[in-house]
Amino acid sequence: MEIIVALKKTVDETYSVIIDNIPSLSFDSKVAIVTNETVAHLHLQTVLAKVKAPEICQVILPDGEEYKNMQTIDVILTALFEARFDRSSTLIALGGGVIGDMTGFAAALYERGIDFIQIPTTLLSAVDASVGGKTGINNKYGKNLIGSFNQPKGVYIDVDFLNTLPKREFAAGMAEAIKISVMFDKNYFDFLQTADLKNKDVIKEVIAKSVALKARVVSQDEKERGIRAVLNYGHTFAHVIENETNYIGYLHGEAVSIGIVMANRLAVKLGLLSEIEESEIKKVLEQYGLPVKYTIQNTQAFYDKFFLDKKTERGEIKFILPNGIGNFKIVSNIDEDIVKQTLEEFTKK
Amino acid sequence: MEIIVALKKTVDETYSVIIDNIPSLSFDSKVAIVTNETVAHLHLQTVLAKVKAPEICQVILPDGEEYKNMQTIDVILTALFEARFDRSSTLIALGGGVIGDMTGFAAALYERGIDFIQIPTTLLSAVDASVGGKTGINNKYGKNLIGSFNQPKGVYIDVDFLNTLPKREFAAGMAEAIKISVMFDKNYFDFLQTADLKNKDVIKEVIAKSVALKARVVSQDEKERGIRAVLNYGHTFAHVIENETNYIGYLHGEAVSIGIVMANRLAVKLGLLSEIEESEIKKVLEQYGLPVKYTIQNTQAFYDKFFLDKKTERGEIKFILPNGIGNFKIVSNIDEDIVKQTLEEFTKK
Repeated sequence: MEIIVALKKTVDETYSVIIDNIPSLSFDSKVAIVTNETVAHLHLQTVLAKVKAPEICQVILPDGEEYKNMQTIDVILTALFEARFDRSSTLIALGGGVIGDMTGFAAALYERGIDFIQIPTTLLSAVDASVGGKTGINNKYGKNLIGSFNQPKGVYIDVDFLNTLPKREFAAGMAEAIKISVMFDKNYFDFLQTADLKNKDVIKEVIAKSVALKARVVSQDEKERGIRAVLNYGHTFAHVIENETNYIGYLHGEAVSIGIVMANRLAVKLGLLSEIEESEIKKVLEQYGLPVKYTIQNTQAFYDKFFLDKKTERGEIKFILPNGIGNFKIVSNIDEDIVKQTLEEFTKK
Repeated sequence: MEIIVALKKTVDETYSVIIDNIPSLSFDSKVAIVTNETVAHLHLQTVLAKVKAPEICQVILPDGEEYKNMQTIDVILTALFEARFDRSSTLIALGGGVIGDMTGFAAALYERGIDFIQIPTTLLSAVDASVGGKTGINNKYGKNLIGSFNQPKGVYIDVDFLNTLPKREFAAGMAEAIKISVMFDKNYFDFLQTADLKNKDVIKEVIAKSVALKARVVSQDEKERGIRAVLNYGHTFAHVIENETNYIGYLHGEAVSIGIVMANRLAVKLGLLSEIEESEIKKVLEQYGLPVKYTIQNTQAFYDKFFLDKKTERGEIKFILPNGIGNFKIVSNIDEDIVKQTLEEFTKK
């Protein structure tokens, strides 16, 4: 089963997300495969066997979100300059979200933009990072604060690559699938409640459904001025959790899972979500092995960190909340006390 | 006389280049004025008197192309993070091409893109850098090799600011005006042959004409895949000259002037330009005080550096040459010997 989802790249360009084994990829010009040590060991040979190009460079980076910084971008760019890449050259991102974000960012910067394609090797990057064109790096002020919007030329998702994923990482990918289902599609949420992920075709369907839903949103709002913000359901909280745990305590999807639980608590307080729906969502998160608990040490400090978020315009926090399952509501101007009361509920062990 | 040229920003956005005194500029959100020490001393107070915003930061950088690097971008970004800029904030580039390129690049990177406007204080940036959306920095491999395409929200050109320009810098700006006239508009070239630049309205007209011609080209080819390459007339040679002189021997416009002379020599050899036209162009360059001579030390070394240029795709050099005055021709596959013979003519003192 091959699944193709056609995405809008810009107003007059589309690109495809192909969910199948990696096809033969031929290039007229130089190609660099950007990956990390872990993924290179597992999948680089498989990909190399599929790529035909006049010159193929390998840029193998250390593995970990802590390397998602400007120094690593410089390593990639220097490799390209040394190999005399030009504007017709292509980068291939082979890896998870970190590799995808950095490769896409380097491709955006190199000579003001060269092509890149993505071969996601994690469920998270397959369902999420491969669509939407967000690229970037972290710095001491927070996550993804420096970057650009840059759409790949194509995305190839080979679910066989996901077999080597640690269980925690697979679960982290499911957090984004659950997120998008709660925001946009009750039927998809119901499907996830009973999905058998041992079946490869079910995984393909989870990926295709998530990609299609996300693509619909992104194509309406490429630069995140409006509806695209909805994809940040759970993320306002997750970013603070990741910041507090120095980006090493939780995988991104795990932090999102906890963020969803926190956002839902707020939604219940505001009468947008019933307690039954809240516990249904929590149950699905737990079912896929995702964390749903977090102990906030200092409510005020946690609250203050909301204002570091890119989406916090003019000092005002916009919360993305479920409005029942399958619908969303963007709420600004929530009383500070209600938000803090919500956080307070997470201070107990 | 106020001149407004409406430019296409993206497919569905336009922005204006306003040639007049700086109007009042009001913002709902934070603003940073990015400038350098020299310009701040001359014009910052004038601009500050025109800007109304809830918070105005000043980012004052050292003056010089040697600071057009990633470290300086980091200085700008850090200032914005420390001042908690968000996506609704705006940067104002007050200065020449270096300030414009770096401010536009920082604006592209900060939280994946915030608005910026340009207030050019050099003739070069008024006629050239303010249009086209090219932003970026230099590195040890060459000029503008890292960057992005990012259009400003608006450009305000106050010709009174140009009064403080050193004579050499003013002349450097004329090089780009002459360049664009030779490529596209014989009437404009004739106008430049006799233009009285002591008259402020004539300067405004030079700027308006150059901007309009460049805008027409850029709007047809925002990402420089085709016709926009024509704007690089003289630049293939100029980039090598700037590289050989470590970016300090010549102002960019001066290097372009010499590059135009070299390109013209090649055009004459190929029968595209008559020797009379060649000397007419040289005369106009000299008339505005631009250099037209350069001694190449090593023809082979000079030739090899062509291949570092971003526009040199797949190892093939594309020369942008005049085809008579007011017309251009893009020529690839020129015999290496003819190019080297041309360079050879510049090896004599």
